[in-house]
Amino acid sequence: MAHKKPLILVTNDDGITAPGIRALIEVMKTLGDVVVVAPDSPQSATGHAITINNTLYINKVNIDPDIEKEYSCSGTPVDSVKFAVAEILHRKPDLCVSGINHGSNSSINVIYSGTMSAAVEAGIEGIPAIGFSLLDYDWNADFEPVKPFIKKIAQQVLDNGLPDGVILNVNMPKLPEKEIKGIKICRQAKAIWQETFDKRTNPMGRDYYWLSGKFVNLDNGEDTDEWALANGYVSVVPVQFDLTAHHALQTLNGWQL
Amino acid sequence: MAHKKPLILVTNDDGITAPGIRALIEVMKTLGDVVVVAPDSPQSATGHAITINNTLYINKVNIDPDIEKEYSCSGTPVDSVKFAVAEILHRKPDLCVSGINHGSNSSINVIYSGTMSAAVEAGIEGIPAIGFSLLDYDWNADFEPVKPFIKKIAQQVLDNGLPDGVILNVNMPKLPEKEIKGIKICRQAKAIWQETFDKRTNPMGRDYYWLSGKFVNLDNGEDTDEWALANGYVSVVPVQFDLTAHHALQTLNGWQL
Repeated sequence: MAHKKPLILVTNDDGITAPGIRALIEVMKTLGDVVVVAPDSPQSATGHAITINNTLYINKVNIDPDIEKEYSCSGTPVDSVKFAVAEILHRKPDLCVSGINHGSNSSINVIYSGTMSAAVEAGIEGIPAIGFSLLDYDWNADFEPVKPFIKKIAQQVLDNGLPDGVILNVNMPKLPEKEIKGIKICRQAKAIWQETFDKRTNPMGRDYYWLSGKFVNLDNGEDTDEWALANGYVSVVPVQFDLTAHHALQTLNGWQL
Repeated sequence: MAHKKPLILVTNDDGITAPGIRALIEVMKTLGDVVVVAPDSPQSATGHAITINNTLYINKVNIDPDIEKEYSCSGTPVDSVKFAVAEILHRKPDLCVSGINHGSNSSINVIYSGTMSAAVEAGIEGIPAIGFSLLDYDWNADFEPVKPFIKKIAQQVLDNGLPDGVILNVNMPKLPEKEIKGIKICRQAKAIWQETFDKRTNPMGRDYYWLSGKFVNLDNGEDTDEWALANGYVSVVPVQFDLTAHHALQTLNGWQL
C-alpha cells in the first residue's frame, strides 16, 4: 500500500452539483484517486431506497476538470454506490465517503438519511465508509472550517481500516474552525421527531398535507453525538448494519412460541 | 388492560389493496380494534424514505366493511405510520404490524425494506411493532398457512410487550402449515446482494439500466434467520434502531484524532 494511491469513491444525497460534495471532493483529492458517482438531483430523506421498478440513467459528467471519472445517476444514493461498484470501478475502493450533507444526520436522523444509506451500502459491500454532515441546511453553507477534520478522519480510516461491519457517521458543528474543540467518538443519542402535518387545500378544493416536525432529544448522556455537537465537537458514531438486538435474544427465547 | 380491546395499527409497503395486508388485517381483527393506514400504491425497496419535498394526499377508503378507519396515503410506509400516529389515532396503539410482505425481508433485506421501515418508525415512536414477510413474491401467494403463526407472535407481543428500542422482523417460509416446524428466535444472517446492471437502449438510442442482483448468504450459522427459513421454521429477529456499534467505540477511541 505504501506507494499506491488510495482509490476513493465519493457520493452524496444532495445531488452531484451540491457545494457539499464539491468540498468533499476537494479534500479527497489530497488523499487519493477520486471517482465520483452521485445522484443527478437532490435525494434527501430517501433512506436506503433502491430503484427496482424504474430505469436508471447514468451520465458521464465533467464538473471537476481534475477528475477523470465523474458520473451522475438518475437513482438514489444507494443506487449510485451499487452502480459504481458493479460497473465503474475496476477494483474495490479503499474508502467510500458520502456528503458533505447540507444538514445534520446525528442521532435518529441516521435512519432517514440518504447520505448515511450510501455509506451503509458501501459498508455492506465491504468498503470502509464514512458519511459526513454539516449542521447547516443552507445551500451556500461554509464548508471550509470542517475540511481539516474531514481530512484527519478519512486519513485515519485509510491508515487503520474499520472494524468489520462498521462505518462512521460524522457530524460537524456550524462553527469557525478555531471554535471547533476537537473530535469525539460518540454513541447515537436517543431522540424522536414530533410530527405535525400542515393541512392545506389545493386549487381544485382537495385537501393535502405537508409533513413537518420538531426534533426532540430524549437523551442527556454526555457520550452522545447530540452532546458533542452542542458543545462544539465533531461527533463520530460507529454505525452497524447488523440490526439484530442481540441483548433481546434471551428475553424472546423465554416466550411461549 | 384486561377488558379493553387492544388498538392495532396495520400498514405495509405493497399498497393497501395487496392480498398480504388483507390477510394481516384478517388476523388482527381477531385480536383487537384495527386501524389501517397504508400506501395507495406499491412502495417496495423504499427503505426508510419520508416525503418532505412533496405533498401528501390521504383518502378514507372502505375495502373491509368491518373496519371503521381505513386510509390510503400517497406517501411511503414511514409517512403512513407518521400520519396515523399524528392525525388519525387518538391514542398510542398497543401494536403496529406491517405486511404481510410479498417476499422475503430476512437477513440484509431488512435494510432495504419498506415493510420493516414502517415497523421501525413505529418502534421509534414507542409502539411495539412487528414486520411480517412471506417468502413468496407472487401477488396471489397463499397466506393461509402462516396466519396461526402471525396470531401467536402478535399475541405474545400484546401480552409481554417488547424490550425498549426493539421491534421484530418475522419471516415465514412458503410451506403448507403442517410442514412449518415452528418459530425460531434468530440473529440476522450476514449476506449481500451481488448486483448486475442489465444495460439496454431506449427507442431514442439512449442507454439505460435495470438493477438486478443475486442474494448471497455468507453466514452458515444455525442461529440465523436464513438457516431457520431454509429448515422450515418461521424466523423472528429482534431488530434495533440504535445503530451504534458499541463494540467499536473502544477501538476508535484509540485513534489519533
